[in-house]
Amino acid sequence: MVKVRLAAPVLQQNEEAARENRISFQKHGIFVLNLMSSPGSGKTSTLERTIEHLAGSLNLAVIEGDIYTTRDAERIEKRGAPVVQINTAGSCHLDARMIKPALEDFDLGKLDLLIIENVGNLVCPAEFDLGEDARAVVLSVTEGSDKPMKYPLIFRQAQVVLINKMDLLPYTDCDLPLLEKELKSINPELELFQISARENTGFSPWLEWLKKQVKIKKQTADQTS
Amino acid sequence: MVKVRLAAPVLQQNEEAARENRISFQKHGIFVLNLMSSPGSGKTSTLERTIEHLAGSLNLAVIEGDIYTTRDAERIEKRGAPVVQINTAGSCHLDARMIKPALEDFDLGKLDLLIIENVGNLVCPAEFDLGEDARAVVLSVTEGSDKPMKYPLIFRQAQVVLINKMDLLPYTDCDLPLLEKELKSINPELELFQISARENTGFSPWLEWLKKQVKIKKQTADQTS
Repeated sequence: MVKVRLAAPVLQQNEEAARENRISFQKHGIFVLNLMSSPGSGKTSTLERTIEHLAGSLNLAVIEGDIYTTRDAERIEKRGAPVVQINTAGSCHLDARMIKPALEDFDLGKLDLLIIENVGNLVCPAEFDLGEDARAVVLSVTEGSDKPMKYPLIFRQAQVVLINKMDLLPYTDCDLPLLEKELKSINPELELFQISARENTGFSPWLEWLKKQVKIKKQTADQTS
Repeated sequence: MVKVRLAAPVLQQNEEAARENRISFQKHGIFVLNLMSSPGSGKTSTLERTIEHLAGSLNLAVIEGDIYTTRDAERIEKRGAPVVQINTAGSCHLDARMIKPALEDFDLGKLDLLIIENVGNLVCPAEFDLGEDARAVVLSVTEGSDKPMKYPLIFRQAQVVLINKMDLLPYTDCDLPLLEKELKSINPELELFQISARENTGFSPWLEWLKKQVKIKKQTADQTS
């Protein structure tokens, strides 16, 4: 009943930093993806598989956002991708000002694709532009089919939903056609990909989508430089 | 790297409202539980089963917190419990000021137990005292064993963790002994209950715990009144 809003200065400062990040990404022709989900949907596992599949074809780096711990960054490092960990020390989302200093740790001129794994949270990260080109949400079938309607903002602002844990679908009550229908009703432009990060299935269409975006970004960067 | 904190006035105002709620609960001898989890862990299903089991033995009411929709409140109403829906209209957690007006819709003198289902989020709800007596977190085995270490605050402040979706354990990579060990390392006082809301199993110890708390609360209320 009482509406709590972020104070304007926080979002204003964020927008400024996001704009600066975006200019930097554009200059180097790097496609940047903001990867979001609730805790435990399988963001890191999806990212591990994506790195495996793209090895040798794209130069990819990762920024890992977590409130505490470096567990996810260690998992990503093992897959051979350059990774920087940002610990938010309590904050429930990444903001653009946290991204900026992390970029200094990469050789941006050599990157094609930067994936930013946000803090596990279906609500707050949606409000903070990091300067990315696109947003993908990982949603697992074990979370139930009603999540899009209950947390619409994050899905409205995304380009992709990766429907994960498809291997568990037979054991859940998730109504997959209903889930997909509701996602499309919130955002008709959404690309939906059904995957199982654990079983390593369904990744091809997602990888094709990513490669296409990287190619488009490179072309626009070449034209503007 | 940059730390974002809530402005002090928000938390101060919340504490004041929480104190007023607590006085009101104490006056009526109502045990109040703040039920939290990430989206899709099974808070509402757990609550539905809990209501079913307690029907006839305790007078229970529910406050449903959601960002949007009244879907969960409709589910609870079907189980026969008085329910008030609070839509936070974008905010990622309930705060004590939202609870206060909702209490006017209940006959507090007749209640033994009030369960407040918070917004699905493992981060932000942990910072807001609603005036409750205890906090329970629902954590599903499909979320993976690393969640407590990544989101410690909510577990540090809880009295109970309901480990849900135990029926799916054989199909996941969740290391249950590790999960329980890490929960206890964060908070040695935690009561852990393994349940499956879908299969309706494992509820007895949890229901006994709840009944015991209700009894203790009634006794202390009787003494102070």
